[in-house]
Amino acid sequence: MKYGVRNDLRAVVKKVKKDEVMAQAEFALEGPLGMTCVISRDSMDDLDLKPGDQVRLLVKAINVIPVKD
Amino acid sequence: MKYGVRNDLRAVVKKVKKDEVMAQAEFALEGPLGMTCVISRDSMDDLDLKPGDQVRLLVKAINVIPVKD
Amino acid sequence: MKYGVRNDLRAVVKKVKKDEVMAQAEFALEGPLGMTCVISRDSMDDLDLKPGDQVRLLVKAINVIPVKD
Amino acid sequence: MKYGVRNDLRAVVKKVKKDEVMAQAEFALEGPLGMTCVISRDSMDDLDLKPGDQVRLLVKAINVIPVKD
Amino acid sequence: MKYGVRNDLRAVVKKVKKDEVMAQAEFALEGPLGMTCVISRDSMDDLDLKPGDQVRLLVKAINVIPVKD
Amino acid sequence: MKYGVRNDLRAVVKKVKKDEVMAQAEFALEGPLGMTCVISRDSMDDLDLKPGDQVRLLVKAINVIPVKD
Repeated sequence: MKYGVRNDLRAVVKKVKKDEVMAQAEFALEGPLGMTCVISRDSMDDLDLKPGDQVRLLVKAINVIPVKD
Repeated sequence: MKYGVRNDLRAVVKKVKKDEVMAQAEFALEGPLGMTCVISRDSMDDLDLKPGDQVRLLVKAINVIPVKD
Repeated sequence: MKYGVRNDLRAVVKKVKKDEVMAQAEFALEGPLGMTCVISRDSMDDLDLKPGDQVRLLVKAINVIPVKD
Repeated sequence: MKYGVRNDLRAVVKKVKKDEVMAQAEFALEGPLGMTCVISRDSMDDLDLKPGDQVRLLVKAINVIPVKD
Repeated sequence: MKYGVRNDLRAVVKKVKKDEVMAQAEFALEGPLGMTCVISRDSMDDLDLKPGDQVRLLVKAINVIPVKD
Repeated sequence: MKYGVRNDLRAVVKKVKKDEVMAQAEFALEGPLGMTCVISRDSMDDLDLKPGDQVRLLVKAINVIPVKD
């Protein structure tokens, strides 16, 4: 399986919260960093994410914004 | 300075390439992971990213896609 | 501080509303125009936007869609 | 014609540049502000934007990032 | 009316659900496929989508991710 | 394999073009419709898309914009 995205990061689910339309999950990445995603509630229900689940997080390169001090 | 984005990751520039309209940079994150961004050539010229530069990478939570095996 | 985005607009907060997962804020731009953003509820709580607050609104050029009659 | 986007701004084309795959246009908004968009070269050719053309710029609220000092 | 997006698909509304900030609609495309959109609640109220309504769905090419087995 | 996206469409590659930073592919969907994607050149090279290849196209619901006449 190959994805047309540059960023594909292994992660573990920490926490999930849900509204009727949207839902959010927090993840620990390999190493010291974490990441948060927001998806539709329906997609969250399909994925059925629970704390401890192993996932991969895809991020298109076009959606990453560099900031320099 | 506070940003309305969930994901704000420290990174170091590894490599940059440029077209007339778009440009791409590759980064090492803290820990074992890396990340790639694509921005406009004009933004890349303004930022003037060079290998070794320290930056922060912002990613809105809505642009992160979880995948589960 | 330099951002890898083309659009960086000064604005003043007019109105905020919140759900459990998402939140919305409306802004007045310099001049006659306004703008609306939707971010995660957690990001809204971190920013703590209130009517009258001065902010900057970042928009990546890739997320702007021109329409011609 | 009604669009499912919160931000719909009148603008005038200032400048266009093109690569084989992507293209960029710069605009003056009503008032003192300007904006830049990046779209595919094919979409730019279909729109045939030229300096002086009047357009509307659509931006989904989810793609606006507030920053507070 | 010409849009600076590559993908412009005719569709019929099947179902709508709403939160305070966000709303979701499901559509049948021409042919066997369907599609779902999430927009702000305010945009949904402006559009006033109801089952059976004919719409067009715009998707920027940059937001389409190809996956290959 | 489950994806946190609402839209997952089977498609066949029709045509590919590439710049140094970005690349574009056109697809036929099941039924009468087509779709175009723009990804980084590096992702296109990894995927190695060629006319006739079968793929799936993922589109987050948040990136679909309904328009009503």
